[in-house]
Amino acid sequence: MQQQLLVAGIDIGGTNVVLGLVNRQGKILWKSSFLTKQFDDFELLVAHASQEVSKALASIEHAQLIGCGIGAPNGNFYTGNIEYAPNLVWKGIVPVAEKFTKALDAKCLITNDANAAALGEMLYGAAKPYKDFIFVTLGTGLGSGLVINGELVYGHDGFAGELGHVIVEKDGRSCGCGRKGCLETYCSATGLVLTYQELKKTSDTLIDSKYVFQKAKEQEKEALTAFALTGETLGLALANAVAYTSPEAIFLFGGLAHAGDFLLKPTIESFEKNLHVIYRGKATIHLSHLNENDGAVLGAASLIWNDHSL
Amino acid sequence: MQQQLLVAGIDIGGTNVVLGLVNRQGKILWKSSFLTKQFDDFELLVAHASQEVSKALASIEHAQLIGCGIGAPNGNFYTGNIEYAPNLVWKGIVPVAEKFTKALDAKCLITNDANAAALGEMLYGAAKPYKDFIFVTLGTGLGSGLVINGELVYGHDGFAGELGHVIVEKDGRSCGCGRKGCLETYCSATGLVLTYQELKKTSDTLIDSKYVFQKAKEQEKEALTAFALTGETLGLALANAVAYTSPEAIFLFGGLAHAGDFLLKPTIESFEKNLHVIYRGKATIHLSHLNENDGAVLGAASLIWNDHSL
Repeated sequence: MQQQLLVAGIDIGGTNVVLGLVNRQGKILWKSSFLTKQFDDFELLVAHASQEVSKALASIEHAQLIGCGIGAPNGNFYTGNIEYAPNLVWKGIVPVAEKFTKALDAKCLITNDANAAALGEMLYGAAKPYKDFIFVTLGTGLGSGLVINGELVYGHDGFAGELGHVIVEKDGRSCGCGRKGCLETYCSATGLVLTYQELKKTSDTLIDSKYVFQKAKEQEKEALTAFALTGETLGLALANAVAYTSPEAIFLFGGLAHAGDFLLKPTIESFEKNLHVIYRGKATIHLSHLNENDGAVLGAASLIWNDHSL
Repeated sequence: MQQQLLVAGIDIGGTNVVLGLVNRQGKILWKSSFLTKQFDDFELLVAHASQEVSKALASIEHAQLIGCGIGAPNGNFYTGNIEYAPNLVWKGIVPVAEKFTKALDAKCLITNDANAAALGEMLYGAAKPYKDFIFVTLGTGLGSGLVINGELVYGHDGFAGELGHVIVEKDGRSCGCGRKGCLETYCSATGLVLTYQELKKTSDTLIDSKYVFQKAKEQEKEALTAFALTGETLGLALANAVAYTSPEAIFLFGGLAHAGDFLLKPTIESFEKNLHVIYRGKATIHLSHLNENDGAVLGAASLIWNDHSL
C-alpha cells in the first residue's frame, strides 16, 4: 500500500491555535484547535500540539508526516522564530521551528500568517494562475504577502510585506506598533469600527465590525460611509502598492473581505482612480478563494508543500 | 591575442543620448554623446548611434561586442520597447531593442534608466555586498529600482519600481503622469524648487535646484527649509518602502543626492523616525558610489553583464 504523504499546518493566533493535516492536493484530512492562552509556557503548547498531530496521524491509514508549516504573527522564515509579537503571550524571541522540529521529528518552517496564507492562495486558491501578486488579509489588523515571479518575498530579514504598517496619514490614528497613521488603523475590522464610531460620534465599545456590516445592510448612512471611507483609503494604498512590484492581481482575504460590495466597490473605484496610467487594465483586485476557516491551516501547510528542496 | 569582450551601454534621455563601451570590470573604454532632439525619426538615431559604436569598436584592439544594454524612460525589459514615454519625442511604442539588435548584430536589452542604474550600483557600485536594496535617482523626477535576492524586480509587465509615482499627498501637487501628489512632485530637483518657490512666495522661473543649493550654502532660511521639507517627505516615503520589500540598504543617486547633508540629514532623520520598529537598525540609507557622469552608461551596460544567460 502506498504511503500517504501529509503536512501538518499550524496557525498560531492570539486567540486560537488551529492545526490540521494537509495532503499535496490541499485537502485537509484532519483539523483541530485549542485556545492559545491555555499555554503560558510555549514548551507545553508544542507538546500538546505535537501530541494532537501524532494522534491524528496514527488514525489515518498509511499516513507519513513530511513536515510542519507554521503561520504566526512576526514569524520569521529565516530564523524559524516568532520575534517580539505584540499580541502573543510569549515575549521576545521564541524558537518555534526548532521546538516543533524536535517534537515532531520533521522539517518545520515558519512565516507570518499573512505570508502563509499568500502561499495557500498561490498553491490552492485563486492565485494559481499568477506569478506576481499581492495578498492582503483584512482582519483585526491588515497583513500582507508579496509574491514576485512565483516566490514569496521575505526581504533580507524575513519581515517583508508589512503593507499594514505603511504610514498613510501623517500624525494619524495611533497604531499598535507605536507609530501613527498606519494603513491597518484605517483598513481593518478595527479601523472600520473606529471610522464608524467617529461618524456616529460614539465610543460605544460594543460596536464591532459585524455590527457595522449589519447596519450597512440596513442602509444606515454612517455605516455605508464608514465602508466607503475604508475602501477609499484601501484602494489608494493598493494603487500605491502596484507602483512597487507591479503585480498582476491583488487578493483580499479575511473577515472584512466578506463585506462584499460594501467594501469592494469603493476599494476598486479608488484603486482605478489612483492607479498610474501605465498599470491601468493590468492589475486587478479579487476576493480570495480560500475558505475563511481553512485558509490559515492550508496556508501554513503550503510552506512545506511549496518548499523547492522537497 | 585574447579578444576583449565589450558591451555597449546606451542611455537615452530627454535631452542627451550618452553611449559608451564597457568591459566586464565596469571600465568605460570609450564614451560619447549627442542631442536626442536631432533625431525626430528613431531609425536615424539608431543608425547614428550604431555607427558611433562601430567606429569606436574598430579603434579598440581585439574588441568584440557581446551585447548592448539600453536605459530609457519607460523602457520595458520584457518587450524591448520604449512605451508611451511622456518626455521623449517618439510617441507610442518604439521597438528599441529590436532595432538596435539588427543595427549592431548583437543581443540588446532595455529597461528604464533607474532600473539600469540600480544594476550598475549592484555590479560596480556601493550595492555590491547587498542582495536586497532599493535604488533611488533624484533628478528632474524620482526614479527607482528594486533589487530582491540579487534580482532586479520587473513585475509582471516590466514596469515595477515606480516609487516616484506613489501618491504621498492626497490632492497634492500636479504630476506629469496626470495624477496629483506623487512623490516625485516633492522629492526631486523639480519638487525642491517648487517647495522653495512656495516658501519664498515667488514664481520666478529662473530658480533651479542649483540656485536653491547655493542659497542653502549661504544659510538662507527658506532654502534650508526647502531641503528639510524635501528630506522629511523622502524619509517617510523610504520608511514606507522598507515595509514592502524589507531591503538592507537604500541608495540615493542623481543631482539632488549631491546636496550632501542639506538633504541627507533630514532624510535620514525622518526615515529613522518613521521606520517600523521591526526594521530599525537593519535598513540604512547610503549615497550611490556611481559617478554621476558615468552611471547611466555603466547602468545600461550592466543589463548585459548581469544577464545570466551569458
